[in-house]
Amino acid sequence: MTSEQTHPSGRSGVSRRGLLFGGAVAGLGAAAAVGADVLLNRLQPGTATERGGEAMPALHGSDTVPFYGTHQAGIATTPQAHATFIALDLRAEIDRSALRRMMRVLTDDAARLTQGEPALADSEPELGTVPARLTVTFGFGPEFVMRAAGPSALPDWLGPLPAFSIDRLDPAWSDGDLLFQIASDDAFTVAHATRMLLKDARSFATVRWTQHGFRRALGSEKPGTTMRNLFGQVDGTTNPSPEDEDFARVVWAADGWLAGGTSFVLRRTRMDLDKWDRLDRSGREQSVGRTLANGAPLTGVNEHDEPDFDAKTSIGFPVIPEFSHIRRARSENTDERIFRRAYNYDHPPSGAEISDSGLLFVSFQADALQQFVPIQRRLDELDLLNEWTTPIGSAVFAIPPGCVAGGYIGDTLLV
Amino acid sequence: MTSEQTHPSGRSGVSRRGLLFGGAVAGLGAAAAVGADVLLNRLQPGTATERGGEAMPALHGSDTVPFYGTHQAGIATTPQAHATFIALDLRAEIDRSALRRMMRVLTDDAARLTQGEPALADSEPELGTVPARLTVTFGFGPEFVMRAAGPSALPDWLGPLPAFSIDRLDPAWSDGDLLFQIASDDAFTVAHATRMLLKDARSFATVRWTQHGFRRALGSEKPGTTMRNLFGQVDGTTNPSPEDEDFARVVWAADGWLAGGTSFVLRRTRMDLDKWDRLDRSGREQSVGRTLANGAPLTGVNEHDEPDFDAKTSIGFPVIPEFSHIRRARSENTDERIFRRAYNYDHPPSGAEISDSGLLFVSFQADALQQFVPIQRRLDELDLLNEWTTPIGSAVFAIPPGCVAGGYIGDTLLV
Ligand code: HEM
Ligand code: HEM
Repeated sequence: MTSEQTHPSGRSGVSRRGLLFGGAVAGLGAAAAVGADVLLNRLQPGTATERGGEAMPALHGSDTVPFYGTHQAGIATTPQAHATFIALDLRAEIDRSALRRMMRVLTDDAARLTQGEPALADSEPELGTVPARLTVTFGFGPEFVMRAAGPSALPDWLGPLPAFSIDRLDPAWSDGDLLFQIASDDAFTVAHATRMLLKDARSFATVRWTQHGFRRALGSEKPGTTMRNLFGQVDGTTNPSPEDEDFARVVWAADGWLAGGTSFVLRRTRMDLDKWDRLDRSGREQSVGRTLANGAPLTGVNEHDEPDFDAKTSIGFPVIPEFSHIRRARSENTDERIFRRAYNYDHPPSGAEISDSGLLFVSFQADALQQFVPIQRRLDELDLLNEWTTPIGSAVFAIPPGCVAGGYIGDTLLV
Repeated sequence: MTSEQTHPSGRSGVSRRGLLFGGAVAGLGAAAAVGADVLLNRLQPGTATERGGEAMPALHGSDTVPFYGTHQAGIATTPQAHATFIALDLRAEIDRSALRRMMRVLTDDAARLTQGEPALADSEPELGTVPARLTVTFGFGPEFVMRAAGPSALPDWLGPLPAFSIDRLDPAWSDGDLLFQIASDDAFTVAHATRMLLKDARSFATVRWTQHGFRRALGSEKPGTTMRNLFGQVDGTTNPSPEDEDFARVVWAADGWLAGGTSFVLRRTRMDLDKWDRLDRSGREQSVGRTLANGAPLTGVNEHDEPDFDAKTSIGFPVIPEFSHIRRARSENTDERIFRRAYNYDHPPSGAEISDSGLLFVSFQADALQQFVPIQRRLDELDLLNEWTTPIGSAVFAIPPGCVAGGYIGDTLLV
């Protein structure tokens, strides 16, 4: 029996040190940190154990992502730990001018909440003060665009995707007129922002579906670590980075009211963990074309090594199988690229199920039809991963560009 | 339009600095940190803005809470950000020796997972390496104790609570034979541990209910900040602290197989946020007897000021109303005390509802009948908060003591 366990918290010590470091870290540039690291370790070597099992994080609750800008936040933003996706259906009587009123109110409250201020009529103002990188991203379904500006404003990709043979879609997880993507490193913040925005919207629209997803907590892994999904796969390796030169070309639409906006695809994909568990490790790695240990391609050593699709085994088979997910997902055509920003979901299983789990596959691309559909079509034709995954929901939204202070999200469509 | 927003992440800078600080912080004692704080600010004053809106936390994913000990972990442990509570029903054929086998397997895997090692037959071993203060706490319902050791082992408080007039209990949220409380600062870790433990248990038991709750993320508020619930109330102020001298008397049972264990009460309590929003601020503060701003008693200024229940307004009414929650919840009898460790829940609302939200009220006390029931009875008789809250689930479990390495949870009952 350990004596530590009976006093596991050491709470007061944690408070003091956590606070000090919150301050110290915020006041530092990268260059100074290098020197400081060495320096600090020299000051007090070997005191690491004093810390015990208790976390001592820098405070990040007041961190904010700017709301106003060319593009909406929550797309190029490094994914937060929690995200709630909500689709709403517009009430029958909502017309163009009502849409304008609604988007003004929603924009105003989203701008406040993301900056750590309560919503305008916040019923619990004390809950609005911890943004933890809160972003709110709005999207419009076909019905919204039609009512706002008629058929000429409708992008040709805005509507249900073509049918795929692998689909087992439930309307309860599909489509919608208006999308909220609400994301933060703090689940409580997401809950409060969700409620405030739903209150703003309630006289204009009803909730069609809500999907909550998570990634690892902020600080529980090194920043920049690629997420793993619930199959244990490293998921997100080959993905354009907001720092890449051609990110803009992949993601941002260039024309009309959507210039600076993008298209959003959400595929709720059930992952059969029980079936997956019956597959051996080599089968799992072949199904994707990458190792489970670190996500390296089967022809490489490190996660970001370039896969060699021509490499053959000693008996002449491709090392990365023809049917593997990465082989099928990659296109020769560099126009067929998407920016993935997925979340995991995991719900209480019912009855004898062990899990109700999967991926909220989310991608952004300038044009869903030109960029997303060809990839999904290839995966539909052949992809070993289909054995363990089933799309059960599907939705496409037009993400309008950002706005300036004083403007509102959707003002390029609604003015 | 801000130029920051088009490059919101600054990811590479964050990685480098985050990493360095992860290292620096782990190598430091409190005393050194004081000096370092000053020192570091002197090295690079005024560089705080370079950080932008991006979080830069110390890494906490490898933090562990000891598994073995006099008491089970997850009780005196500073509450983690996420917790899943699962109740299972034993299969008909499970007898004493099967219970022993099950608890050995569960103990073994819980010990591994909490220390950041994969479970013994972990199907996704890479997912088991980020404990983030994972704790697993087991509890036994009456049926478990009966099968393990017969009626003589049954504490008189183990079973459904007496009926209260405020209860609207749904059996789907009540009772059970075996409890898992799985908590971590990382929601992904909770999901993986849940699955591994359910796989261990599946041949012995079926899932009865699963309830997931959350608090603020680690590091999003100062350590030691009392949580707020979804009504915006500071919730948890007057609560024994594990550092208090009489914590042991309140929480730990002293006799028989339960010595070092405790009783666990979970009351799933729906909070009607819409109705609450229609109440003005003063009404809300009166219903509890504390301010919303900082949780101070209505007779005080700071959160931890002692409430003065005798203070009267100028027209002779008590400042803290007779019907207020804190007045009703506090007992003259110091034996009637409990240790609360609640979580918030918030689920997708259905139809016209704006929220399906509430509190997973959880308390630990040596004796549920002597300590919890008198308080709940007083609140049942009179408590203004009842206007907005409804218990919809109720469960009591016996939490056995901890065990030593080589032993297993429940070994005082099953040997
Ligand atoms: C549950 C469903 C899915 C799972 C578990 C999954 C998993 C993975 C994994 C493990 C990788 C390799 C690592 C990486 O580069 O991220 C990958 C790559 C990729 N996936 Fe998926 N995926 C799923 C669905 C989809 C869908 C629906 C699409 C698009 C239609 C898609 C498109 C891609 C693309 C474009 C890549 C990069 C391929 C390359 O190397 O060029 N995935 N996915
Ligand atoms: C949704 C249901 C509930 C809510 C929202 C709630 C909220 C609160 C709040 C805001 C406080 C004041 C701050 C504090 O000391 O924590 C409090 C105190 C307290 N509550 Fe509750 N509570 C709920 C249910 C219960 C139940 C079921 C019990 C036990 C039967 C209980 C027992 C207590 C006790 C013992 C205190 C401390 C009283 C004192 O000052 O001595 N509460 N609660």
